[in-house]
Amino acid sequence: MSYENRFFKLARRPVGRSGPQDFEAGEAPVPPIGSNELLIKTEYVSMDPTNRIWISDAESYLPPVAVGDIMRAGGLGTVVESKHPDFHEGDTVSGLLGWQTYGVNNGEFIHKIPVLPGIPKTTFMGALGMTGATAYFGLLDIGAPREGETIVVSAATGAVGSVVCQIAKLKGLRVVGTTGSAEKCALLTNEFGVDGTINYKAEDIDTRLQALCPDGIDIYFENVGGAVLNAVLPRMNLFGRIPLCGQISTYNEDEAALYENPFRQILMKRLRVQGFIILDYMKRMPEAIAQLSKWMLEGKLKHKETIVDGFEKLPETLNLLFTGGNVGKLIVKV
Amino acid sequence: MSYENRFFKLARRPVGRSGPQDFEAGEAPVPPIGSNELLIKTEYVSMDPTNRIWISDAESYLPPVAVGDIMRAGGLGTVVESKHPDFHEGDTVSGLLGWQTYGVNNGEFIHKIPVLPGIPKTTFMGALGMTGATAYFGLLDIGAPREGETIVVSAATGAVGSVVCQIAKLKGLRVVGTTGSAEKCALLTNEFGVDGTINYKAEDIDTRLQALCPDGIDIYFENVGGAVLNAVLPRMNLFGRIPLCGQISTYNEDEAALYENPFRQILMKRLRVQGFIILDYMKRMPEAIAQLSKWMLEGKLKHKETIVDGFEKLPETLNLLFTGGNVGKLIVKV
Repeated sequence: MSYENRFFKLARRPVGRSGPQDFEAGEAPVPPIGSNELLIKTEYVSMDPTNRIWISDAESYLPPVAVGDIMRAGGLGTVVESKHPDFHEGDTVSGLLGWQTYGVNNGEFIHKIPVLPGIPKTTFMGALGMTGATAYFGLLDIGAPREGETIVVSAATGAVGSVVCQIAKLKGLRVVGTTGSAEKCALLTNEFGVDGTINYKAEDIDTRLQALCPDGIDIYFENVGGAVLNAVLPRMNLFGRIPLCGQISTYNEDEAALYENPFRQILMKRLRVQGFIILDYMKRMPEAIAQLSKWMLEGKLKHKETIVDGFEKLPETLNLLFTGGNVGKLIVKV
Repeated sequence: MSYENRFFKLARRPVGRSGPQDFEAGEAPVPPIGSNELLIKTEYVSMDPTNRIWISDAESYLPPVAVGDIMRAGGLGTVVESKHPDFHEGDTVSGLLGWQTYGVNNGEFIHKIPVLPGIPKTTFMGALGMTGATAYFGLLDIGAPREGETIVVSAATGAVGSVVCQIAKLKGLRVVGTTGSAEKCALLTNEFGVDGTINYKAEDIDTRLQALCPDGIDIYFENVGGAVLNAVLPRMNLFGRIPLCGQISTYNEDEAALYENPFRQILMKRLRVQGFIILDYMKRMPEAIAQLSKWMLEGKLKHKETIVDGFEKLPETLNLLFTGGNVGKLIVKV
């Protein structure tokens, strides 16, 4: 059988927020697969803040997407042909599929998605996928939480933050989440059971932190950088931990974010600030997914997602992550 | 017997560098000691960068010295009277003695100094004291060094830095030290055996780091903040560690040091930045002192000190730490 692949290539490096002007749509026939290869039909594309980093020329944990290359992205799809021993036609797989409707793959960087009764497969792009595992390892490994401690989670309604909030509650922590609207604050309280919320767009962060964290902050799960980080640092407790997962408020900026003496705070409070990226934990993924799946099947963990329909909407949808347009995992249905 | 105590009280909070104008000399008779107390005659006062923090009103790991109080400082002295069961006349002790010639103490925050043949007792204020232990725990516990790695040590000829350099060499690391003069660079090379030196006052830090650390930096032992930290961060290797021991370049500044996007670097490189203070390790001090003493008796560890003679010189001597006027441990002989 022959297939026509639709794709988006990076047309130029974006300035500020990216958009349709930075990508070029194209079509090409899918070449026949060779031995040890498989052909995947993309069903869903994962939208992640890190995508914006990949299309800049900034130093990162992966090389930048070259201008002229198909946009790199995570995704979920179905195997339509396979000459690879580990994958078979009909398998659902997840991995770096890119902004394209069909992809030939040699089995690297993809893995099979199990069938769990009652669990939609897109859950494996969120709470039971990379973002869920990011929350799991960042909070438990780096945050080292102890029952009764106070945690602040930024971007708390996002794909990672929403799982961090829920795991933190399961571990007996007092949880305060920051997010960008009253509706999202209500969601944090009513759906994710957090103890306090801060609408950073409408409320004074410092005043709210003081009110909500009278005993200081033991863990700050950091997704955003900028104003929230600056407000949290002086309120950290001795020996506090800051798992550094993202800096989303800075990804569209051409000017660097400035911080006043953060290292002085880290020193005086003997804080531990540690950056991490889920790719470092790939070998331990099964541990995270097993525990997260168990919690989900027990009804203790909720997966939230925002699905945008239409492959052609990929370039414009990425910005929803930065404008606060999504709740939970942001996905484009192909 | 009756004794007359000479002391310096903090007269006002200094602006910028502190000096004689910020302290007030005084004298008073020493009161008789009570039960479980001892009287210590101060022989040496320890000069430490953290003293400058204590006399500011900045948030710190200890409360600020109040205006009108005797200046807080570490020191070494002899017990001249004792009604305390653990201390006897003639014992040499070390602890928070303050800027005074005699001090009544209840045995808290002081400990006895052993007699080691061939080892001057001031060594227990430096390489075998708090600063040596700071180097020991900061490098080995937080830096987690592995043979063959590259470490950059700032303020490398200082009391802590000089011990870090030597332990790092003992552990098989490539050691690059930053300091403030050609003479100190020569000392680093000839006395402490480091592999490369940077005179941050005369050389371009970034160019020199590039030349001296072709494989990047695995550990940055951070004493200074500011320009050196800004130059080191982009050259850190993946999973690098930054034991955060001091920020001496910022202690006299009323304006905060600014850093551009340091958290982005910490994230992308998955660095671990951890503040620590030797007071957190007091229970493990014997471990550090035993190992450091062993190395010293084996001729593998050198203690360097700069001794200024004269109790009255205390207020002006503190600045030598910030002007680069000392090598190794800075001490005032009373």
